[in-house]
Amino acid sequence: MQTVQVPLGERGYDILIGPGALKDVGGHCARLGFAARCAILSDTNVAPLFAATVHKSLVKAGFDPALILVPPGEGSKSLKVFHSCHDQLAAHRMERKSFIVALGGGVVGDLAGFVAATHLRGVALVQVPTTLLAQVDSSVGGKVGVNLKAGKNLVGAFHQPRLVLCDLATLRGLPDREFRAGLAEVIKYGIIYDAALFERLEREMPKILRRHSTTLAEIIARCCQIKADVVGQDETETGLRAILNFGHTIGHGLEAISGYGRYLHGEAIAIGQVAAARLSAELSGFPPADIARIANLFARAGLPTEVRLSASQKQRLFAAMQRDKKVSGGEIKFVLARRIGEVVWGQKVPLARVEAVLEPTANQSVGG
Amino acid sequence: MQTVQVPLGERGYDILIGPGALKDVGGHCARLGFAARCAILSDTNVAPLFAATVHKSLVKAGFDPALILVPPGEGSKSLKVFHSCHDQLAAHRMERKSFIVALGGGVVGDLAGFVAATHLRGVALVQVPTTLLAQVDSSVGGKVGVNLKAGKNLVGAFHQPRLVLCDLATLRGLPDREFRAGLAEVIKYGIIYDAALFERLEREMPKILRRHSTTLAEIIARCCQIKADVVGQDETETGLRAILNFGHTIGHGLEAISGYGRYLHGEAIAIGQVAAARLSAELSGFPPADIARIANLFARAGLPTEVRLSASQKQRLFAAMQRDKKVSGGEIKFVLARRIGEVVWGQKVPLARVEAVLEPTANQSVGG
Repeated sequence: MQTVQVPLGERGYDILIGPGALKDVGGHCARLGFAARCAILSDTNVAPLFAATVHKSLVKAGFDPALILVPPGEGSKSLKVFHSCHDQLAAHRMERKSFIVALGGGVVGDLAGFVAATHLRGVALVQVPTTLLAQVDSSVGGKVGVNLKAGKNLVGAFHQPRLVLCDLATLRGLPDREFRAGLAEVIKYGIIYDAALFERLEREMPKILRRHSTTLAEIIARCCQIKADVVGQDETETGLRAILNFGHTIGHGLEAISGYGRYLHGEAIAIGQVAAARLSAELSGFPPADIARIANLFARAGLPTEVRLSASQKQRLFAAMQRDKKVSGGEIKFVLARRIGEVVWGQKVPLARVEAVLEPTANQSVGG
Repeated sequence: MQTVQVPLGERGYDILIGPGALKDVGGHCARLGFAARCAILSDTNVAPLFAATVHKSLVKAGFDPALILVPPGEGSKSLKVFHSCHDQLAAHRMERKSFIVALGGGVVGDLAGFVAATHLRGVALVQVPTTLLAQVDSSVGGKVGVNLKAGKNLVGAFHQPRLVLCDLATLRGLPDREFRAGLAEVIKYGIIYDAALFERLEREMPKILRRHSTTLAEIIARCCQIKADVVGQDETETGLRAILNFGHTIGHGLEAISGYGRYLHGEAIAIGQVAAARLSAELSGFPPADIARIANLFARAGLPTEVRLSASQKQRLFAAMQRDKKVSGGEIKFVLARRIGEVVWGQKVPLARVEAVLEPTANQSVGG
C-alpha cells in the first residue's frame, strides 16, 4: 500500500493506493471517528461489482450504511439527482459526524462530494474511486459539483475528502474506453508538471495499456503526488491550481456542445490538450516539434487528438467556452505550455487563434 | 452608521447599520473589488419596495446586475427554486469574482447565500437584510441553506458574506407580525448572552414596538455584536455557536409539523424558548421565577408562548426533532439556561421531559 499525503493543514488527508483497499474501507473509517450512520453512494454499474464488499467492511467495523444508487453517466451530475440523494440521506437520518463513501468514477465522486459538502451543511466524505480517471484526478483535491444545462460543474463546492482509497483491483474490469480516458489525465500531469513522467509514459505505454499492476500503481501514485503538491499550494484555485485545467477549456466546451454524451471527459480533454499545445507553440514558446510528441502519446493511448466541427458547431463551442468558469473579465484564459513539464496559466487567447488550432491540418502527425 | 466587525480573519467582514444604507450598496461593493457582473436576489414582496434603489446604486457604481425574483415565503427555500436561481445566474454569465446581493428577509438571505456558496463553487455574497429577524440573525454568521421535505435547513453550507448592510428604513413598513417575529431572536440574545440586554428589553418593549429608531439601531447593533462574538469564536458550530440555537430544537420541530406555514420562525422559537426555559428550571438550575419573566417578555412582544398539541401532533413533533441536525449519537441535545444571560449547550434531554414542558399548565403566567 502506497500513501500520498495531501498537505492541507487541518483539512489534509491521505491517499492510499494498493490492492485490497476495498475490503478495508470500514477499518480505515473507524480510525477517523465518524458516527455510525453513513451512506455508500454509487451507480448501478459499479455497485454490483464492489458495493457488497464495501458494505460488508463497513458493517463489520460497526457502521450502519445506507446504499444510495444513481444511474451511471454524466446525467447523474444534476441538481435533480442531487435532490434525490439528499432526500435519501434525510430518510436515513444522517448526523453531523456521519460520512458518505463515494464508490465509483468521477461522476459519482463529484456528485457524492457535493452532496456531502451540503448535507447538514457538510458531512465527511471518503472517496473510493473505481476508475483510472477518478483515482488520478477527480477524487483528490476537493472540487465537487454538478452540471447545469448551461455548462459543466457550474454548481459545486470545495470539499476535501477525509480519505481517498484507490484499490487497483477495481481497474481490472474497467472497459478499455474508460481506462484510456483516464490516461488523458495521466498524460496531462506529464505535460504540466513532470517531463520525466511524460517520458516514462512514452516508454511504457504498451505496459500501461496491458494494465501492468506495479507500473500502474507507481504511475497513479505519482499523479496523486503531483495533484497533492498543486492543491496543497492553492486549494481554491486562486492561481497555480489552474494548471490542472490544461486542455480543459476546449475540452469542457466540446463536452457541452455534444450534450455530455458523445465524448468521455478524457477524450474531450485529449483533443483540448493537443489544441492547447498548438496554441502554446504560437503564443508561449512551446517547441513545435513537441506538438507531435503530445499528439502521438494521446494517439498511442487510443485517444482522439482532433475534431472536425461545422461552422455552427464552432460557434456553439465558443459560446460554451465563454460560459465556462475560467472566464474572467469577459476574456477566456488558457493554460499554455512552455515545454513538456512546464506550463503557465492565465494566458488570454483571442478566439480567432483558438479557431485556427481546431482546424485539423494535413501536415500534423497524429498517428500511433 | 454603526459598524460591527465579525472577527473571522480573512473571512471577516463588517456589518453596517444605519439609515440610507440601501442607496450606498453600489459604493460599498465597489470597494470590495468585485467583477462587474452581479445579481440581486429578492422576493416579489420586497423587490417592489427596494430593488430599484439597490439596482440604481449598483449601476451607478459600474456594476451590471441581473434581478432574480423568487416567490415570498419559506417555500422558496427549496432545491427547486435553488436550481432556477442557478440557471438564471448562468444565463447572466456570472464570473468567479461576481457577487450576489441578497435583498430581503431570512428566506431570501438563506437561499441567496446557498446559491452564492455553490455557484461556480462559490461567489461573493452581500447581505442586505430587510426584516428585523434577518438583520439581527440570519444575515450574519454564514449559515445558508434550503429545506427538504424531511426538515428545515438540511441542505446548506457555511458561506460568510463579504458585507452586511442593515438599512433601518426597511423596517418601517414591515408588517407587525413579522416585526414581532424578529423580536423572538432579539430576546434570545438577552437570554443566552446578555442579561443587561434582556433587562433593557423588559424596560423598553413599548418603545421598541413603536419602532423608535435610535433604540432599534442600538438594539440591532448589540444583537449583531453578540452574534459576531459567538461566530468569531466558533464559525462552524463545533461548540459555543450552538447557544444560538436556544429554543430552536422545539421551534424547528413545530415549523416542520405545521408544514413551515402556520408559524413564522420567530413565533415557533418563542414557544421553543419558553419550553427550553422550563426544561432549564428542571435540569440546569434555572431560577423557576425567571420562566415567567421570559414568557412575559415574549407575550409583551406579541409572541406565542405555548402550544396545544394532540397526541399524534406530539408524536410527529418528536419525530421531526429527531430528524433535526442537532441530533448526535441518536440523542437530542438541548441548549439550556443557567440563568438569564448564561446558557449551556449539548445537554441531553429525555423525550418524556420535553413532552412534559410542552403541556400548557394553568398556573403558569404567560400574560402581557
